[in-house]
Amino acid sequence: MNSSNRRFSNQSSVDRKLVEQEEQRNDIGFGTKITHSQSRLINKDGSFNITRINDSLWDRLNIYNRLITMGWAQFFSWLLLAYLFTNTLFAGVYMLAGSDTLKGVDDRALNGPFWKCFFFSSQTLTTVGYGHISPDSFLTSCIAAFESMIGLLAFALATGLLYARFSRPVAHTRFSRIAVIAPYLDVNAWMFRIINTRANQLIDLNITVSLSRIEPKADGTPTRKYYGLNLERSKVTFFPTNWTLVHPITSESPLYGCTPQDMETSDSEFLISFQAMDDTFAQSVHTRYSYRHDEIRWGHKFRPMFDGSQQGTVTLDLNRLDDTEEIALN
Amino acid sequence: MNSSNRRFSNQSSVDRKLVEQEEQRNDIGFGTKITHSQSRLINKDGSFNITRINDSLWDRLNIYNRLITMGWAQFFSWLLLAYLFTNTLFAGVYMLAGSDTLKGVDDRALNGPFWKCFFFSSQTLTTVGYGHISPDSFLTSCIAAFESMIGLLAFALATGLLYARFSRPVAHTRFSRIAVIAPYLDVNAWMFRIINTRANQLIDLNITVSLSRIEPKADGTPTRKYYGLNLERSKVTFFPTNWTLVHPITSESPLYGCTPQDMETSDSEFLISFQAMDDTFAQSVHTRYSYRHDEIRWGHKFRPMFDGSQQGTVTLDLNRLDDTEEIALN
Amino acid sequence: MNSSNRRFSNQSSVDRKLVEQEEQRNDIGFGTKITHSQSRLINKDGSFNITRINDSLWDRLNIYNRLITMGWAQFFSWLLLAYLFTNTLFAGVYMLAGSDTLKGVDDRALNGPFWKCFFFSSQTLTTVGYGHISPDSFLTSCIAAFESMIGLLAFALATGLLYARFSRPVAHTRFSRIAVIAPYLDVNAWMFRIINTRANQLIDLNITVSLSRIEPKADGTPTRKYYGLNLERSKVTFFPTNWTLVHPITSESPLYGCTPQDMETSDSEFLISFQAMDDTFAQSVHTRYSYRHDEIRWGHKFRPMFDGSQQGTVTLDLNRLDDTEEIALN
Amino acid sequence: MNSSNRRFSNQSSVDRKLVEQEEQRNDIGFGTKITHSQSRLINKDGSFNITRINDSLWDRLNIYNRLITMGWAQFFSWLLLAYLFTNTLFAGVYMLAGSDTLKGVDDRALNGPFWKCFFFSSQTLTTVGYGHISPDSFLTSCIAAFESMIGLLAFALATGLLYARFSRPVAHTRFSRIAVIAPYLDVNAWMFRIINTRANQLIDLNITVSLSRIEPKADGTPTRKYYGLNLERSKVTFFPTNWTLVHPITSESPLYGCTPQDMETSDSEFLISFQAMDDTFAQSVHTRYSYRHDEIRWGHKFRPMFDGSQQGTVTLDLNRLDDTEEIALN
Repeated sequence: MNSSNRRFSNQSSVDRKLVEQEEQRNDIGFGTKITHSQSRLINKDGSFNITRINDSLWDRLNIYNRLITMGWAQFFSWLLLAYLFTNTLFAGVYMLAGSDTLKGVDDRALNGPFWKCFFFSSQTLTTVGYGHISPDSFLTSCIAAFESMIGLLAFALATGLLYARFSRPVAHTRFSRIAVIAPYLDVNAWMFRIINTRANQLIDLNITVSLSRIEPKADGTPTRKYYGLNLERSKVTFFPTNWTLVHPITSESPLYGCTPQDMETSDSEFLISFQAMDDTFAQSVHTRYSYRHDEIRWGHKFRPMFDGSQQGTVTLDLNRLDDTEEIALN
Repeated sequence: MNSSNRRFSNQSSVDRKLVEQEEQRNDIGFGTKITHSQSRLINKDGSFNITRINDSLWDRLNIYNRLITMGWAQFFSWLLLAYLFTNTLFAGVYMLAGSDTLKGVDDRALNGPFWKCFFFSSQTLTTVGYGHISPDSFLTSCIAAFESMIGLLAFALATGLLYARFSRPVAHTRFSRIAVIAPYLDVNAWMFRIINTRANQLIDLNITVSLSRIEPKADGTPTRKYYGLNLERSKVTFFPTNWTLVHPITSESPLYGCTPQDMETSDSEFLISFQAMDDTFAQSVHTRYSYRHDEIRWGHKFRPMFDGSQQGTVTLDLNRLDDTEEIALN
Repeated sequence: MNSSNRRFSNQSSVDRKLVEQEEQRNDIGFGTKITHSQSRLINKDGSFNITRINDSLWDRLNIYNRLITMGWAQFFSWLLLAYLFTNTLFAGVYMLAGSDTLKGVDDRALNGPFWKCFFFSSQTLTTVGYGHISPDSFLTSCIAAFESMIGLLAFALATGLLYARFSRPVAHTRFSRIAVIAPYLDVNAWMFRIINTRANQLIDLNITVSLSRIEPKADGTPTRKYYGLNLERSKVTFFPTNWTLVHPITSESPLYGCTPQDMETSDSEFLISFQAMDDTFAQSVHTRYSYRHDEIRWGHKFRPMFDGSQQGTVTLDLNRLDDTEEIALN
Repeated sequence: MNSSNRRFSNQSSVDRKLVEQEEQRNDIGFGTKITHSQSRLINKDGSFNITRINDSLWDRLNIYNRLITMGWAQFFSWLLLAYLFTNTLFAGVYMLAGSDTLKGVDDRALNGPFWKCFFFSSQTLTTVGYGHISPDSFLTSCIAAFESMIGLLAFALATGLLYARFSRPVAHTRFSRIAVIAPYLDVNAWMFRIINTRANQLIDLNITVSLSRIEPKADGTPTRKYYGLNLERSKVTFFPTNWTLVHPITSESPLYGCTPQDMETSDSEFLISFQAMDDTFAQSVHTRYSYRHDEIRWGHKFRPMFDGSQQGTVTLDLNRLDDTEEIALN
């Protein structure tokens, strides 16, 4: 390899330091340039607060993903609409091919030829095929043969979508609405807590928390910085009760010496990434959450969620997730 | 960042020690406050012994999870019930719409108009549609068109549920009913063993064992403590025969110097988390098990499970899983 | 915790050494007691050569697993048999309920009442429901309503099984029929090679090789020992061509100084565990293979599999997988 | 173990060095012998540029894989063809068995007996079964019973394929068409960037980059070498915007001192392996990409993709992915 033509700086030790320093950025994917935004980075539903333009229509529609993630009522409404639309379409085609070739019933009982075609179409699409209306010409037989194939494929698609919807791994966790800053050992700590709202078990939980805030560069221009926060414990094997996540504000914490005022000025946001294993299907589940500076209660601690009134059994009261009480900080 | 307003202790070296010490807790998710319970933490079926209140009705029902994990007899009973209920419902609707618009058979042969509607409904729901009963009015045709769509979706759902049930990754492992404390090299060891009850292969097995027991704090109040137990081997690649898990009770073990009496007093429970890969589908399988102090045989060892009577082949006798014999401890 | 009652040895440093020594066993799950067997541990199809007795009938049948792993011809034969059996069964039930209540055709055209019942059953089970035979009594209508539900569920089951069969992650790799011992750098090395027989891509391959052989203990009794073998490279990211796995026989290798005679005496077997990611579905695929002492060619090396006859393109000739040629050993 | 028969070199320290040296090869699976090819190793669609001969017909067809990965239009065309072919086949069988035993309609309305058989076949295969044509002999009843079973299985297969197609994990990422060499801190760096074209989220991204080029051995024969390239950051947790991958060309980089001319001479190609987690289904997604020497712009940098025109929201313009501008190198 010819390397005589060196146009590069050869201050390699300096280079490496700079590179290493740059590597220590804890940017988790948002980049450092989002500084003018006064809104949150991660929405409450776990999506990102970024607008995209010039994506293709197909990518923007993202049909499969939408059909999987929309609510059940909306999903069934779309199914019903598609069913009615397809039947109307094919009813039109049968009308063009001649409704009189669909034999077997008196049109008038079914409100005229269009509805006869419509009902014949529905009986073909669903393959129920009573036969009291049946195609009695070459053309309508062809259309019916095609429609019944379409029908089977359409319901095959619906079967797949239904299965995909209910087998999709979703973390049914609830985060406390607010985080607190409470005393912890000899220091204070930033804390939030979560519960599993479902009876099915989550195992091997893993949580990471990053702090994002705007800081001025040496030249005074604002830049967005990211810090990984050390947690007292970031993994648990089982999740049968509630779990309180604790970031102790020791002198190494980026929160050390920070006041509520500082947090507001710097547009601080705590970004949480949650991962666990759903035990029922051994599927990995993921979710995101964030707390902004105005969702933190200074000098509050969480009240226990165990209900002591029922002797002999360990009872968790899910309604107490957000219960806090005042406490003096260290 | 303004940090003049320091309200925090700056004993950072002390702080870190405390934090680190706290980090060494081996709590696996139950917390330290479950001390009044005299029942087990993990049930024999792997679920957690925790009662939950104030969870929402929907979360408590957890329908999908129940339909997946209930027994096959119960599952098919629910399917049959749903089928009968839906047909009865639609039969009622057809009665309201006028059973005389369902033409083609003599009502009396089918025990009257209700049953004619019921059977017509079943023929529509399953899309069998013989056609010897057929809708001969606009209204009943509409209902039938709707019912046949519902029918296809319902059976699509059933297809999905059936597939989800039999493709669900389940570890068909059997744990020995009791654990033993037997001599091992120069010390004693706590042991249990497991087998794969199915012929399909499990690979890359991974087992962790924790000891949970109640200990008094410095001030005498009881607190629940957790210890990870070192295993002689906690991973194997293949699992063709039985596997005996061995925790040697060396001086570093929390069991060192412990008597059966101690175990009972401290409400000791061994919590086991099992993970493996099912070879057929390359799916991860998980299960949990626990041994309480009264499920441990002191001074017993497991008898080999190999059956020597059949020469030339290696034969494993699954019935011998729980066979132990007395042996003097070190 | 009361620890006065110490019945344990307190030679903790000695204990730990022994435990650590024991930990170094590389047993991969077969145990040390299989010494009388003169047959292989891992069969050529990747299954284990272990016989099991006293497993329950249900576990031995392992129906789901069998239906998934049997050949396609066998699978479809079972489906056809189940279809014929179910129709015969229901035909019998219709005969008992009275074949004359199934109306619409002349029995004689269908070879008598049994076959009329049989064909009616098949038309109900598959929900084809022509209606030229139809149930005209309360009892047969009930049976038909039940059968059509059974039919839909049965085909739902078949749908699930079909999907499970073709979506099952299987590694379509072929191992060279023999391994070789060939010169490698300044030493010799034990080598085998593999190819991907399919056009779909495998990525992130990972191979581990263990040597299993029978060695005498200090007291002369034979015991089965396991050694992990170091590979020149045990991971590759892509697998577009063939891959030759190389274990260099340096002085640290358990094969160092070993002769073909030694291998035979000690019943040596090389156990291979293969893992990769199928790119099409991002599924993990696993397989096992083994070479016994009589499947190793000493003083042979593999010939290249590239076909040089076609200029300009890189061409891999799958037929050359097992091609070797003699070479002098170091 | 008898080890008297030592035929091996005992220069073990030398051996190990050589082995270790060899281990440092960063070959990612293509091997060192592909030197005559002047075409790329990885195609733009992520497949490998290797020709295979003598693979079996079955392996070459690889039907399942093809049906999963072909385009939707092609897939539906094959389905339609299979449907027409199967119906034609069964129509022929019914003709042989006697088309006059299919009763109920006047042949002439359907263009003669063949088409009557064809339409009856389609009504049986899809289980629509109107019944206006029905089998009225033992033989045709048998064929129809068989065809309806085949029909259900075929559509079960289609259901599975459809589900497999749309649930397949695919990374909808777009790589910048060109890579650049731009100044970075005190050195220069090789850079490319990627975006997520879909609205669904990718998390836990992981990218590795290897450089492949032909270098002469000590004896002058060309050999293909591989180098893993250090990236400023190779992992991010979230991927809401664009991500620029940066390889700083420090003195440790294999690109250090390299000119455009060098790259062309050595047939340099940058091989990229991309892995992430699709958040919707918690599925792992993989893709590959490569840049050849003629796809690198020296002395260009990427322009930001954020659109500053819309105040208050963070807006990403996907059209700007390939936008670069000239810049002087360090």
